[in-house]
Amino acid sequence: MSSRFIITLSCPDRPGIVAALSHVLAENGFNITESQQYSDLESGQFFMRVACEGAAAKDRLSAELNPLAAGFDMHLAIHEADKKQRMLILLSKFDHCLIDLIYRQQSGSINMDIAAIASNHETGRHWAEGAGLAYHGLGQKQDKADNEARLNALIDEAQIDLIVLARYMQILTPQFVARHEARIINIHHSFLPSFKGAEPYSQAHKRGVKIIGATAHFVTADLDEGPIIAQGTEPVRHDMSVADLVDVGRDTERRTLARAVSLYAERRGFINGTKTVIFD
Amino acid sequence: MSSRFIITLSCPDRPGIVAALSHVLAENGFNITESQQYSDLESGQFFMRVACEGAAAKDRLSAELNPLAAGFDMHLAIHEADKKQRMLILLSKFDHCLIDLIYRQQSGSINMDIAAIASNHETGRHWAEGAGLAYHGLGQKQDKADNEARLNALIDEAQIDLIVLARYMQILTPQFVARHEARIINIHHSFLPSFKGAEPYSQAHKRGVKIIGATAHFVTADLDEGPIIAQGTEPVRHDMSVADLVDVGRDTERRTLARAVSLYAERRGFINGTKTVIFD
Amino acid sequence: MSSRFIITLSCPDRPGIVAALSHVLAENGFNITESQQYSDLESGQFFMRVACEGAAAKDRLSAELNPLAAGFDMHLAIHEADKKQRMLILLSKFDHCLIDLIYRQQSGSINMDIAAIASNHETGRHWAEGAGLAYHGLGQKQDKADNEARLNALIDEAQIDLIVLARYMQILTPQFVARHEARIINIHHSFLPSFKGAEPYSQAHKRGVKIIGATAHFVTADLDEGPIIAQGTEPVRHDMSVADLVDVGRDTERRTLARAVSLYAERRGFINGTKTVIFD
Amino acid sequence: MSSRFIITLSCPDRPGIVAALSHVLAENGFNITESQQYSDLESGQFFMRVACEGAAAKDRLSAELNPLAAGFDMHLAIHEADKKQRMLILLSKFDHCLIDLIYRQQSGSINMDIAAIASNHETGRHWAEGAGLAYHGLGQKQDKADNEARLNALIDEAQIDLIVLARYMQILTPQFVARHEARIINIHHSFLPSFKGAEPYSQAHKRGVKIIGATAHFVTADLDEGPIIAQGTEPVRHDMSVADLVDVGRDTERRTLARAVSLYAERRGFINGTKTVIFD
Repeated sequence: MSSRFIITLSCPDRPGIVAALSHVLAENGFNITESQQYSDLESGQFFMRVACEGAAAKDRLSAELNPLAAGFDMHLAIHEADKKQRMLILLSKFDHCLIDLIYRQQSGSINMDIAAIASNHETGRHWAEGAGLAYHGLGQKQDKADNEARLNALIDEAQIDLIVLARYMQILTPQFVARHEARIINIHHSFLPSFKGAEPYSQAHKRGVKIIGATAHFVTADLDEGPIIAQGTEPVRHDMSVADLVDVGRDTERRTLARAVSLYAERRGFINGTKTVIFD
Repeated sequence: MSSRFIITLSCPDRPGIVAALSHVLAENGFNITESQQYSDLESGQFFMRVACEGAAAKDRLSAELNPLAAGFDMHLAIHEADKKQRMLILLSKFDHCLIDLIYRQQSGSINMDIAAIASNHETGRHWAEGAGLAYHGLGQKQDKADNEARLNALIDEAQIDLIVLARYMQILTPQFVARHEARIINIHHSFLPSFKGAEPYSQAHKRGVKIIGATAHFVTADLDEGPIIAQGTEPVRHDMSVADLVDVGRDTERRTLARAVSLYAERRGFINGTKTVIFD
Repeated sequence: MSSRFIITLSCPDRPGIVAALSHVLAENGFNITESQQYSDLESGQFFMRVACEGAAAKDRLSAELNPLAAGFDMHLAIHEADKKQRMLILLSKFDHCLIDLIYRQQSGSINMDIAAIASNHETGRHWAEGAGLAYHGLGQKQDKADNEARLNALIDEAQIDLIVLARYMQILTPQFVARHEARIINIHHSFLPSFKGAEPYSQAHKRGVKIIGATAHFVTADLDEGPIIAQGTEPVRHDMSVADLVDVGRDTERRTLARAVSLYAERRGFINGTKTVIFD
Repeated sequence: MSSRFIITLSCPDRPGIVAALSHVLAENGFNITESQQYSDLESGQFFMRVACEGAAAKDRLSAELNPLAAGFDMHLAIHEADKKQRMLILLSKFDHCLIDLIYRQQSGSINMDIAAIASNHETGRHWAEGAGLAYHGLGQKQDKADNEARLNALIDEAQIDLIVLARYMQILTPQFVARHEARIINIHHSFLPSFKGAEPYSQAHKRGVKIIGATAHFVTADLDEGPIIAQGTEPVRHDMSVADLVDVGRDTERRTLARAVSLYAERRGFINGTKTVIFD
């Protein structure tokens, strides 16, 4: 009986990493089915993602790889490819990204479970509950401390792997962000770094750009400055109003966010300082 | 014997403009072959481009349209569709946009003549002279006053309609820009307003964006703030160096600039405050 | 009190059409807010779409335009811009286009009502009923005559303007198609004319193309040969299975179909023989 | 002193290939800088591209890898990364792809040398000679045997690695194609398999498609059926003539061909039966 694993690792670059890893895998009867690597000349960091399959259990594989990880000073993780991660979706008023994530999850396009949904608005409830998903109401801005306490409890209880800000318009505290480092993804409704901050479509309309965009990024303490995972763009015309840009933008947002979530689900995104490495 | 004209106009919006114009054209035996209009609700300005053909000469048509233009407080211009405008191309070291404009002009893709080329570098001379085009050497930054004086003389003498900054890396004086208002187009090697200023590809690389772009805009006294005519984007990957971005960007730059020049050649671009109206 | 109308017309091309139409509109106090025209040199047909607003009622405008239409041998129609058309959605097993149309209708992105949904499968029922929309079950292939009779009754009763085949996998009879000429839109899951017929994603996978696509077209008696309204494409890679292509393709299909339906809703698509004229 | 190599291999898939290869490389002091692999479930073939650097010479590396290649029944090739391959460009009347390849070669965008150019038309001579490149005149269709004999002599003498059909409108004989198996790339001016054969832009215009494309493929005895390397698409409108499609298409053709040639230059394209594996 065979198991499929995805191994992700990063470490200071030096010769012999691939040979050492593939040697351990071969010795333990694993076949490598997909492998990608990147060596960042600036940071000196090496990144690798390996998909493999073999008969050994995760514990055994882990025990075999531990010495290697120690020797190369690696951050190494072994993921069971068939075990779905669990997602918490946060949103405010706009529900287009929520609906899209629900559909993609149901159709198998995103290989992850939606464990819970939480929002400070009721617009998404109908779609969530129609899909049989729990919808948790949150308080408004003044209730931030309470909201985040409730979210933390929910995240722990529901064993959440990824928090998706699917047009969640409240700013998270640095404490919350730090607690969930590298596992919060936000969709920003502009082509960052253009039009940071509030109302990017109004800003874009005012500037008269001919293309608008959306940016999915990991959330860090620096607002709109987190490592970018995916971006999308769409042409616009002079005769479009702000409302038209919002309408066109919805499509770009939901596709860009879905792509970022899908990359995360398949362990294809790595944080590399203020940037990302994406193996797709 | 029939002539083809392109009529461009802008004026404060009010009812009856289209009817009045089409009435004059019909009375004078003109057939409208293409017509586009836009009413900007914010500025209250109306913009129109009409292609027509008929037997009357330009003077006659002009005389017939003058009362209309006066009555509606119009900026109205009548262009002979078959008379090519004349372009001056300025560049510095990078010659990819120059080569592309030469090729597109020769292949008939851009309906405009290249009347002259000027540069503070010699890299483009070979391609220009190979195409039989005059190549004027300019001085370096310290010679700005002299350079612009020579350019002005060249522009007057060669009867230039459009000045194309095809990666010309010197900043023009406000006086020069003012003298050639609405007829200087620049290609900026970023997706504005992202990465204004120097070395946008280095900035983009540092930020870790997943898409880069280029922006063609009318030049105004405000650097990188002129009305945007066209933009283009292209995806990039984490493993691309700054040099790779420059390489990918060359393609986007030359296509975006060519599109802007082609729109200008066909009188399809209108300045509307800090933005443009593009009838394509 | 002002009304907004969209006038669509086609007729043999000859001088004076625009002037005559804009004269009538101006005489009746109408302001033209948008106008597009196209003269097909091959067929000699002229097409025009005019958006206008004014105080006169539709009957009055119609009476004023009738002599014009007769004089120029026009097909002319006057549409109330604020009156939504009514759509019937047909689907089989795959529900991604249905869900997308429901969402776009609800968010105001498509300016049309969904009057009814019918299907020979149950997969879409859940989403339809969740959105409060009637879902009519149809029989299978052997029941075609009965199915079409029921559809015709439904179409008449629900006053359907547009029939959208949102991945409806049954072939309609020539009689049904003829009865609803120029008001059936299909989404074909390939970039036509590539991969006509069954299982286009399997065909695309077998051929090893690097881009897949989708095509929205008016339905005619000639399968997969109807006038094309919109097409979309998306890059694919060698390591994608047929199932991966299906997954990527869902996105392209729903966007392409939504675009076609939106163009129809705004009266921007004209049939010109075996092709279309699209004023967007 | 370090050398950079690119190793390409294909063989029947089975466990241990990556481990064995990386072991040999590590034993010989090579560092793997880039690695990609693909296992085709249908054909059972395994494909791999590895970039590595180390102190050993090519002969030594080759001797070390030979037993491995024999053991796994591999097609294995070792390429010196810094040694440029040599390209022969064939064209007929249209010179846009030629000019683009010359520019990209000169700017370093394509890492390959243009060793020679041959054509049955004179249009490209001016650009070729301006770039200091030999331009060989060929006879017309009736001289096919003589043309191919001359081409074979030129290919041998100039040590050509890749033959690029940059809009070469003559059909090559099966003998010529067989002699240069897997090293002839053609640009077809349509989005294959749509519009095979002659005049694809006319076919596309007649069908009324909304997107046109270009296809770069390896040339095989089956015309327009060779393994596809790269495709590109561009939107078009109803008001474009065949000449307009040709104009838009030139851009798509030259970009698509340049991409295919660049992939070849970097050993990123593998033939897999009637398809390709592209590691980019």
